[in-house]
Amino acid sequence: MNLLNVTDPDDPRIAAFRDIRERDLVGRENRFIAEGEVVLRGLVQSARHRPLEVLIDAKRAEKLRPLLEALPPGVPVYGAGQEVIDQIAGFHLHRGILALGQSAPARPVSELLAQLPEKALVLVLKAIANHDNMGGLFRNAAAFGADAVLLDAESCDPLYRKSIRVSVGSVLTVPYARLMDGEDVLGLLEHSGFRTFSLSPRGEVALADVVPPQRSALVFGAEGMGLPEEFLTRTQTVSIPMAGGFDSLNVATSSGIVLHHFAQPFFSRK
Amino acid sequence: MNLLNVTDPDDPRIAAFRDIRERDLVGRENRFIAEGEVVLRGLVQSARHRPLEVLIDAKRAEKLRPLLEALPPGVPVYGAGQEVIDQIAGFHLHRGILALGQSAPARPVSELLAQLPEKALVLVLKAIANHDNMGGLFRNAAAFGADAVLLDAESCDPLYRKSIRVSVGSVLTVPYARLMDGEDVLGLLEHSGFRTFSLSPRGEVALADVVPPQRSALVFGAEGMGLPEEFLTRTQTVSIPMAGGFDSLNVATSSGIVLHHFAQPFFSRK
Repeated sequence: MNLLNVTDPDDPRIAAFRDIRERDLVGRENRFIAEGEVVLRGLVQSARHRPLEVLIDAKRAEKLRPLLEALPPGVPVYGAGQEVIDQIAGFHLHRGILALGQSAPARPVSELLAQLPEKALVLVLKAIANHDNMGGLFRNAAAFGADAVLLDAESCDPLYRKSIRVSVGSVLTVPYARLMDGEDVLGLLEHSGFRTFSLSPRGEVALADVVPPQRSALVFGAEGMGLPEEFLTRTQTVSIPMAGGFDSLNVATSSGIVLHHFAQPFFSRK
Repeated sequence: MNLLNVTDPDDPRIAAFRDIRERDLVGRENRFIAEGEVVLRGLVQSARHRPLEVLIDAKRAEKLRPLLEALPPGVPVYGAGQEVIDQIAGFHLHRGILALGQSAPARPVSELLAQLPEKALVLVLKAIANHDNMGGLFRNAAAFGADAVLLDAESCDPLYRKSIRVSVGSVLTVPYARLMDGEDVLGLLEHSGFRTFSLSPRGEVALADVVPPQRSALVFGAEGMGLPEEFLTRTQTVSIPMAGGFDSLNVATSSGIVLHHFAQPFFSRK
């Protein structure tokens, strides 16, 4: 393991890690920042995204040796003291390890759908603009073995630093693709043999009464906004019964409840 | 409606609202800050907590008149421009309304248990130290009509500003009580006729196979820490089956999944 020693926070070799909190807000050119051991492990395991550079608290290098040795050849690993790392990052980085990643090229939704197994569970996200929710949705997708996530054009970037962190790295391991503006996701899903279920407070069927088919797509929209009319008319609408008067659940929590229901027979059939 | 006009951010009458972001971190003397219309409505409806003062963006006063008129007599309502409010609060307060609340005196867990209906669903929280999770747990408790939340001595304060906000005000409406250090919650629950279920990745029974009894208590611990041995031996342990290798769900999401399961017969029996 060849640790490249960094002692100066202004060292040009680690420019990619400088002030990462601020740079979340600007364009990122297919680069992203992965924080912490668990997330970096997701990046190393990812079939599509790849690590470019790693910055680590030198004290932790020995303990993390197996992970660092699993990096692709040629990925530089910079080591610095915690104090220098905090100066580079612009805040106290208690996780002690950062990686710069390069995201996979975008692929069409149809291509991703074509690669799914015969028994498949897919999430469809409509206008999910909150990075916490995006991370939570991916975390739940991974927990229940969903095969893919489809994002509409209005949904935020899963590779935003906070989404990656909240997802505990699962945005790097759960396959996803983004719909083009105006692309007919319901048509694509139907063509691929999926039955589509849209979560809605006014859904026709209670979740517990749904018998999951072999290929299911589950549509979640942003809280409060509701789904477009075409989703309510062209898909099976599903509700989660709740105590009277309470508005709604957080969308990530809803996804956990729905995925748990759909994944039960799914697990046992696999 | 008597709106007291505030033009100076240093006006001593609104000192309680000054720099609220910072003051989250210090002792709060049974006071809390409620932000936004929905949360303030929860506070007005609360049987135990009460509003002391309100600060509102004067432009919104007319629209919020019904809510303001539902305040108890004698609660002063201060009106100011958005700019002055932002200076008072110390950040941009897009919700445009703040209330200072006084929390109800603490009550023993046994007293709260004695007040519950014959059919009852209770959450028991062990060492939940994260305010986001606390808010999410209460939000889900409200959504599924849980009757009470019991907190151990190590869990954080539900009336911390962020918890209130994440709970969408439900920390103000769902009854709760805090256990004294060393108090035997399992004994108290058993004495009150509750059957207790502890969520654990190594739980003996899968959630979907549990038939909820008339009185259920659901125990959630902090992620990663696991529950103390006595909970694993003295209660029915329950697991949420997940896809291989994925560590765990967020604790608030887990509570949503479990509450959904337990609330189904609960709703229909009521």
